[in-house]
Amino acid sequence: MKKSLIASTVLLASSSLAYAEAPKNIIYMIGDGMGPAYTTGYRYFKDDKSTKYVERTIFDELFVGLASTSPDDDTVVTDSAAGATALSTATKSYNGAIAVDTAKKPLTTMLQIAKSKGLTTALVATSQINHATPASFAAHNESRRNYDEIANDYVDVKVDGKLAVDLMLGGGTKYFIRDDRNLVSEFKQAGYQYVDDFDKLESIKSLPALGLFSDVAFAYAIDQNPTRLADMAKKTLSLLDNNKRDGFFVMLEGSQIDWCGHANDIACAMAEMDDFANAIKHAKQYVDQNPDTLLVVTADHSTGGLTLGANGHYSWHTDVIKGVNASITKIAKALMKSDHLLTTWSDKTGIKLDKSQAEQLAMLTASAKSEKDDEHKEKEALVKHVRQLISDASNTGWTTGGHTAIDVPILAYGKGADAFKGHLDNTEIANQLINYIKQR
Amino acid sequence: MKKSLIASTVLLASSSLAYAEAPKNIIYMIGDGMGPAYTTGYRYFKDDKSTKYVERTIFDELFVGLASTSPDDDTVVTDSAAGATALSTATKSYNGAIAVDTAKKPLTTMLQIAKSKGLTTALVATSQINHATPASFAAHNESRRNYDEIANDYVDVKVDGKLAVDLMLGGGTKYFIRDDRNLVSEFKQAGYQYVDDFDKLESIKSLPALGLFSDVAFAYAIDQNPTRLADMAKKTLSLLDNNKRDGFFVMLEGSQIDWCGHANDIACAMAEMDDFANAIKHAKQYVDQNPDTLLVVTADHSTGGLTLGANGHYSWHTDVIKGVNASITKIAKALMKSDHLLTTWSDKTGIKLDKSQAEQLAMLTASAKSEKDDEHKEKEALVKHVRQLISDASNTGWTTGGHTAIDVPILAYGKGADAFKGHLDNTEIANQLINYIKQR
Repeated sequence: MKKSLIASTVLLASSSLAYAEAPKNIIYMIGDGMGPAYTTGYRYFKDDKSTKYVERTIFDELFVGLASTSPDDDTVVTDSAAGATALSTATKSYNGAIAVDTAKKPLTTMLQIAKSKGLTTALVATSQINHATPASFAAHNESRRNYDEIANDYVDVKVDGKLAVDLMLGGGTKYFIRDDRNLVSEFKQAGYQYVDDFDKLESIKSLPALGLFSDVAFAYAIDQNPTRLADMAKKTLSLLDNNKRDGFFVMLEGSQIDWCGHANDIACAMAEMDDFANAIKHAKQYVDQNPDTLLVVTADHSTGGLTLGANGHYSWHTDVIKGVNASITKIAKALMKSDHLLTTWSDKTGIKLDKSQAEQLAMLTASAKSEKDDEHKEKEALVKHVRQLISDASNTGWTTGGHTAIDVPILAYGKGADAFKGHLDNTEIANQLINYIKQR
Repeated sequence: MKKSLIASTVLLASSSLAYAEAPKNIIYMIGDGMGPAYTTGYRYFKDDKSTKYVERTIFDELFVGLASTSPDDDTVVTDSAAGATALSTATKSYNGAIAVDTAKKPLTTMLQIAKSKGLTTALVATSQINHATPASFAAHNESRRNYDEIANDYVDVKVDGKLAVDLMLGGGTKYFIRDDRNLVSEFKQAGYQYVDDFDKLESIKSLPALGLFSDVAFAYAIDQNPTRLADMAKKTLSLLDNNKRDGFFVMLEGSQIDWCGHANDIACAMAEMDDFANAIKHAKQYVDQNPDTLLVVTADHSTGGLTLGANGHYSWHTDVIKGVNASITKIAKALMKSDHLLTTWSDKTGIKLDKSQAEQLAMLTASAKSEKDDEHKEKEALVKHVRQLISDASNTGWTTGGHTAIDVPILAYGKGADAFKGHLDNTEIANQLINYIKQR
């Protein structure tokens, strides 16, 4: 129950900056779990090896600072809920908190302030839209796990008598259409256009609107649609541009960078980074065309203890990672269905196995196949082996299935971007954005 | 044999900045192995838990950007030699290269350019002064391992007929006073004051001077003198200030952050970070008093795959790390000499052991004690166990005994500091500094 912010000196500095003229529109993007190993790794992953230079990425181009992420306790390591609460309310809270303080009292979010100022508001994610990060912008709950209550809040927590979020795109029909309550019907009654087929994303022509494109979360970018976030970003900015009167506030989350990190799945993570990078490019283009707009990109924390290089070897093999075209769990499933194990392995990963690795893969796959439906131990052993083969071949290091405390990148571009340079605490990012919004 | 620099666009940008008025004095500090996990970790390690805020460190205060570090091959992961060569000559080379290009041809270093421009020059390190990082500023060799040849270069590679480095402080008498050549005598003949007792550091009153304070490297900060680099930094800046005519160039290295990283020794690393932080504070103070001075701090790479948090636990226990008051190797030695094992363990680490951990420690210590002098396997097993106990108790993660490719922090302060903001390649840092020096 301590540690709200890093330093009073910086607070003063950002307060004084806050009185500069505020941007009309704010595009806030959060790469969940996107620590500096992810942005660094993505550069080398994307490098065109036929050129003399390592090409800069959008993350490099827009990079301005680093942010500290510790929550309001002595753990140092935040979860996504406390991270998003800090990034949406400028207040540190405990791990698990959805826009509530350590006394579990609701905290006003920047999206709610934006709505009260007449800005058009939007939330976009590739997770269920009631997952921790988007939730912390428009719901209040003592626990991120109360998914139904969080979804209810999107209807129930009004701003000046109105629903707070004018556009929501993500997953989560399971939480919105329930036996006890049909939130989709309620959104429709409130005048929202509803779409549940991603192929009909373009059919949304005006706001308010709700798009829920999967039961829970989207599939991983590497397994299905590698540009689903970028597509939603483009569509969202077009809708907001058409519907803005007094400007807009949108939060777009690259939700599953984190999930690939939890799974210690490097190819999965790089595909999510690519989708997020393309989404950022759309946002940058919008700023270029609308210079009264501010784009801020950051992360809530880093995931997996990812390191580029491991085990004493001075190398990180991006070619190996580029050769992997499915998530680890998808690879394991494909192996279990396959009658030609090594062909399937090669098709999915391109990684050559020695005799002992191939034998172990065959053994573990056979065990997983023979497993009863209600058990997962054998399948887990196969997943673990696949993970190890990919990590070893690419020389990728991981230290945890959870999060770490390393500072995360801040990118900023457009009107008012100078306030985000250098080292900030995550609450200072939010504080500055709130100051801008309050000036509207 | 590719990949010299990241992007031509930025090169152009920094070239244009180069024609701004150049600083008179340049203080260049390299934290060897100091990736962003080290600067982040140091903040939480230093946090005063009695206050509401997490205090900002000197690294946070001066932070302006991140630098990429990949060498001139496809490994992505650099060693200290290629890293220092990039940071001193603006040219990427191969791992192991000491200021030579991929064709093993000597590259002019910024220190040599500074000397030719009439600036006073200095190199300071806590390693032997002919170790990779300082070596890459005043020697040229195809291999960092040729320590004798590198030391010879400090006398033999002259600039305009003069020795290139006016002040050298570090370790390495072993390489300077040899059967085949006595470099110390040669330095003395060239007019250098020579000191070999750290307690007589203050006896150096004028330049040129050579101080070699240990046979090879200094002891770890945690094991002996926690402020040896800070002390040398203060003394160096005082000497340079007294002796400068046309300004000065000095490179000071926090050499052993890297070595603690290689040893996966977190308490050791935090003590090195503290010494480096205090050295930076002296440099900042100098800039405050001499605004025509530029301070740039960066790292060559990150070491050890350090992560703050590991094994699925959302925590990093700085209190545990603060309780450890010796390096892992020193703890292992103390255990081997002790008649009261658990008392010694507790004195050195403050970490409570459960019964099985204590039994294993006793067993491994007994094995290490009984080991023959010419073997190290049993002692290595003890060292490994001590490392594991500290890592587990503090929840610190490591993935390698080598380096990783993550981008490293850039700090800049004083005249001309604006050129180092955002994302740069390590060669771009050097390029900008060289441009400044050439304007003199």
